[in-house]
Amino acid sequence: MVIVIKTGTPEAAIRQLLAQLAAQNVKGGCVAGPNGILLPLVGDTWRLDPNMLQGLPYVQEVRRLTPAYHLASRAAHPANTVVAVGDAKIGEKFCMIAGPCAVESAPQMAAVAQSVKESGAQLLRGGAFKPRTSPYTFQGLEKAGLDLLVQAGRDAGLPVVTEITDISQLDLLADVDVLQVGARNMQNYTLLKALGQLRRPVLLKRGLSATVEEFLLAAEYLLSGGNEQVILCERGVRSGVSAARAALDVSAIPVLKRATHLPVLVDPSHAAGRSELVLPLALAAAAAGADGLMVEVHDRPACALSDGGQSLTCRQFRELSAAVTALLPYAWRPDTF
Amino acid sequence: MVIVIKTGTPEAAIRQLLAQLAAQNVKGGCVAGPNGILLPLVGDTWRLDPNMLQGLPYVQEVRRLTPAYHLASRAAHPANTVVAVGDAKIGEKFCMIAGPCAVESAPQMAAVAQSVKESGAQLLRGGAFKPRTSPYTFQGLEKAGLDLLVQAGRDAGLPVVTEITDISQLDLLADVDVLQVGARNMQNYTLLKALGQLRRPVLLKRGLSATVEEFLLAAEYLLSGGNEQVILCERGVRSGVSAARAALDVSAIPVLKRATHLPVLVDPSHAAGRSELVLPLALAAAAAGADGLMVEVHDRPACALSDGGQSLTCRQFRELSAAVTALLPYAWRPDTF
Amino acid sequence: MVIVIKTGTPEAAIRQLLAQLAAQNVKGGCVAGPNGILLPLVGDTWRLDPNMLQGLPYVQEVRRLTPAYHLASRAAHPANTVVAVGDAKIGEKFCMIAGPCAVESAPQMAAVAQSVKESGAQLLRGGAFKPRTSPYTFQGLEKAGLDLLVQAGRDAGLPVVTEITDISQLDLLADVDVLQVGARNMQNYTLLKALGQLRRPVLLKRGLSATVEEFLLAAEYLLSGGNEQVILCERGVRSGVSAARAALDVSAIPVLKRATHLPVLVDPSHAAGRSELVLPLALAAAAAGADGLMVEVHDRPACALSDGGQSLTCRQFRELSAAVTALLPYAWRPDTF
Amino acid sequence: MVIVIKTGTPEAAIRQLLAQLAAQNVKGGCVAGPNGILLPLVGDTWRLDPNMLQGLPYVQEVRRLTPAYHLASRAAHPANTVVAVGDAKIGEKFCMIAGPCAVESAPQMAAVAQSVKESGAQLLRGGAFKPRTSPYTFQGLEKAGLDLLVQAGRDAGLPVVTEITDISQLDLLADVDVLQVGARNMQNYTLLKALGQLRRPVLLKRGLSATVEEFLLAAEYLLSGGNEQVILCERGVRSGVSAARAALDVSAIPVLKRATHLPVLVDPSHAAGRSELVLPLALAAAAAGADGLMVEVHDRPACALSDGGQSLTCRQFRELSAAVTALLPYAWRPDTF
Repeated sequence: MVIVIKTGTPEAAIRQLLAQLAAQNVKGGCVAGPNGILLPLVGDTWRLDPNMLQGLPYVQEVRRLTPAYHLASRAAHPANTVVAVGDAKIGEKFCMIAGPCAVESAPQMAAVAQSVKESGAQLLRGGAFKPRTSPYTFQGLEKAGLDLLVQAGRDAGLPVVTEITDISQLDLLADVDVLQVGARNMQNYTLLKALGQLRRPVLLKRGLSATVEEFLLAAEYLLSGGNEQVILCERGVRSGVSAARAALDVSAIPVLKRATHLPVLVDPSHAAGRSELVLPLALAAAAAGADGLMVEVHDRPACALSDGGQSLTCRQFRELSAAVTALLPYAWRPDTF
Repeated sequence: MVIVIKTGTPEAAIRQLLAQLAAQNVKGGCVAGPNGILLPLVGDTWRLDPNMLQGLPYVQEVRRLTPAYHLASRAAHPANTVVAVGDAKIGEKFCMIAGPCAVESAPQMAAVAQSVKESGAQLLRGGAFKPRTSPYTFQGLEKAGLDLLVQAGRDAGLPVVTEITDISQLDLLADVDVLQVGARNMQNYTLLKALGQLRRPVLLKRGLSATVEEFLLAAEYLLSGGNEQVILCERGVRSGVSAARAALDVSAIPVLKRATHLPVLVDPSHAAGRSELVLPLALAAAAAGADGLMVEVHDRPACALSDGGQSLTCRQFRELSAAVTALLPYAWRPDTF
Repeated sequence: MVIVIKTGTPEAAIRQLLAQLAAQNVKGGCVAGPNGILLPLVGDTWRLDPNMLQGLPYVQEVRRLTPAYHLASRAAHPANTVVAVGDAKIGEKFCMIAGPCAVESAPQMAAVAQSVKESGAQLLRGGAFKPRTSPYTFQGLEKAGLDLLVQAGRDAGLPVVTEITDISQLDLLADVDVLQVGARNMQNYTLLKALGQLRRPVLLKRGLSATVEEFLLAAEYLLSGGNEQVILCERGVRSGVSAARAALDVSAIPVLKRATHLPVLVDPSHAAGRSELVLPLALAAAAAGADGLMVEVHDRPACALSDGGQSLTCRQFRELSAAVTALLPYAWRPDTF
Repeated sequence: MVIVIKTGTPEAAIRQLLAQLAAQNVKGGCVAGPNGILLPLVGDTWRLDPNMLQGLPYVQEVRRLTPAYHLASRAAHPANTVVAVGDAKIGEKFCMIAGPCAVESAPQMAAVAQSVKESGAQLLRGGAFKPRTSPYTFQGLEKAGLDLLVQAGRDAGLPVVTEITDISQLDLLADVDVLQVGARNMQNYTLLKALGQLRRPVLLKRGLSATVEEFLLAAEYLLSGGNEQVILCERGVRSGVSAARAALDVSAIPVLKRATHLPVLVDPSHAAGRSELVLPLALAAAAAGADGLMVEVHDRPACALSDGGQSLTCRQFRELSAAVTALLPYAWRPDTF
């Protein structure tokens, strides 16, 4: 961190500030120039709140040089975190999660679960509580949907992933293996704090306009509560000009792999917004070093109650799974230059 | 809405689609061209889910021409909605809401409440549950903070506004006059649905990367639950290049005033991110037709536990209030050209 | 500027780097922490190229704390630059520039010039070389258009502003009073260098995705060539979610007024993209401290060959001019808090 | 295209508009609804200027459904355009372009040219006219640099690519095989028109905030001048939140491959901004179906006068080339689902 102090600030004020910072395990220097005085700070700067420092009358500007997260950082935990769910070891072996956007019926879930398992998926996804932009579109089957999802997972021998949109749903979600926090809830800190108290895997999606640092600070809420089973999921950011619905931030994959020990999945379906873009985005994500994919698959996309336009058919997912598996040996690995 | 149908689609499929749409009170035409067939649709198109239509095998593209919100639209409710709280008639007379980012102590609240009232504020704000990007920064006093806020409001004769971050807080917030939904929770639909069941004013802030349509669809969740006391608040969007922390979208003010009957406030403090930008942004917002302002004020910004860098002093707020009041007669009104 | 040096870098390498920097009038300190070594730098850091420093093998990161422009900065030139053109003293008194997007005919130019002059405009604008997104839309009358513009200006007694899109046009533009560099050419450095050699006013528009620093560095190209008559013009940035065509970055006005001595105009027409948003944006810009406005006005927008949708009628401009003039005494001034 | 007409518009006006459009080979229908009248238009809508139509008094809104480019579209030219340069057949076989950001010296160019050729590059790049954000950083060797580049290419047997920043440089660039238009000049239409008159390959980079449609319209300027040898190059867009310097828009690759017949290269170096991200982005681009890569390579990045931080060493480029070549058989192809 660097604090820029206004010229003309009395030395005593600077000395007092440095003394206060020293008490928080932060060590600082001081270099004076014509346009201001620089205080470079090292140590536990992640504890400091720049907005609070910014309020001091003689402070001109505060800039972080190192991130504000700590437990999520690779420095604090050099080995990869591996989240084991069913046969999957997320963070160690490439993992495929597949299933419909929304749970709609028992036959749908049975058909999709059986098919994606045969195609190599290790977890089954399906939404029961759907956060929808318009109140007039399908909102999910809620409890009934959860029951269908859990049943389909059991029958197919696949652990299940579903989105939690409020802490009041926790009891209903008792039989769900992985709880997903959606992009719109990435900064729902009440929810994150509650999930941090659990000892169950949480899949955290990046917010639509979240920086990597904000993403890892959301993970930090989970980790600082004691829940170490955190899986990150990149799903595209809003750029205003991207060719697809969201700009899949492929560079976030290698950046995250170096910055953090947590596994990094990619959801190509939501970034694409259209089924024909899912395969190239999935291949790009795998090539750039993702630890796995989460893909929307529907047995009959034309009848889907939600996001039909971006769902793959079961056959398309089988092809995607084969194509990704073939590419994997040639993908980027963090130990390359 | 317009649906682009792939060339070569059998007429029968198109006729069937138009018949289904007719049942939802949507009327359509059909014009065929060399690169596709256009189905222009009029009527209750807000009921339709473009993503679902997009899943149909012969649909190439679906585009909305009119928004997906309905109750929030000016067409459905031509007169301004006026939300009466204390002496304020938000949507009818310009309204000022002021107070600290976070409630910190009884003396702080008493000093600020008294001062902002004298300066012309009609409501007192203060955060008790603070959504903070980092888990290591001040998270708010929670219940104790609410009590201090309510007490300070009573003593000063000002109704109070505070942020709700989860429906579990509703009981604690019984004495709060206006419930605020923060930018990060704009698409927390579980929260919005619960607040839609109340008959208490809700101040809804625009999400950091929300379009005007997504903003009004969030309001539609409140309205469709039956809660008509909805106040919108623009607070800047993320652009990546704006001069301040967020790009205050001033054009959203006249656009919203025409699109909806709901009052439109502006929060210059969060858009600015720095106290010296609050006044020019406040004046710009008033000039562009805002129905009021929500401003962060602290008796001693240098000691603020949260957002000290963007808080005005009580004296600065008095000057801002006077400057805005003087400018108001010359501000834009929706009935101008 | 701060350089973060990788841990384990030999002290000799750091000493050598600091010695090299000292030769460029940059003074540095050094503070070592567990995750890296910080070199805070003060002095003529605007001379340094962070990308070049970034290439050094032991450098982890380079961050600017002060801007890379120098001549454009308020620190280097505390008094306002005033550009005198005709009766206008841009930077001292509020200035209105008005006229059609594209010059189309002598009657059009005569009608608009006469009318906007009566309404208070001090300069006449009109495009002869039009940068258009599609090659199939009207590209401007080129030389014939320039002649019409200059003639209309002379007849009405108004200096003229027009866009230069290439240095090959310089001879043709001999009679033009102010040369405009459009948003798409803000980083056309060949053009900027050539205009820096002139001693004629240049109106430089901010690029659609340019930061304030990049904007002022474009101005620095003009200033460092010796041309001191530089006028800045904010015209909205791309955000992907703004309510209008571009997000008018109102905060850029006070930020620029503090960072630089150059005058800051605003073009509400291009930010708006629709005529009904031009007035509220103009009022917001004036309220936030702009030194003037540049507005598109057409005698018959329905017949405009370019940008008809955002042009005001002559009558609307008269109303806008009156409304802005009335508001001006209540606008923000840089000497306020 | 769809035009939304205001309710209450006389039928005669609509009939007249449709008649005018028919004269431009555009056929329209008409469907009336409660909130407006829709005119769906098919045919040569790429000829129409929506901004001009928007100026008509009874037009509420104009929306394109099909793009405004024509010659660049896959529909108008189903087969891939293949640009043959030296041994490269860009658009048919995967192509690698490599070389330093800026030409600096004969030994540098000789070393890099020899090395990248051995590693599999088919073209040599190097900048002589450098568009730099700050006037105080290295601006390129200009004519001397061109000579060094051409000589190094000849000696190594590699055709050369360099950036043209102004049409006045055309004579100097007579011996250059491929002329590059940089991201900042993507909408420099004077330059594009001049290059459209040539019969030499042009490599056009996507602007930092350009949509795919704007990108292809820039290409349309080249094509409509008669120059069919156009190569597109994606290099990342500005998002404000991307993990790297720019958000490499991988989805643009498959979208472009379907929308246009022109070859699509990717520049991972500028998107990355840091050398350690170049390899994963290169692999992602290849996996998503890019026709080739353009990579910055320097023999001694620590001494680079420009962009040292993102340049690969010759050895790193050899590893990248091998890794990309190995992955290519598993990359996405447009004929997949």
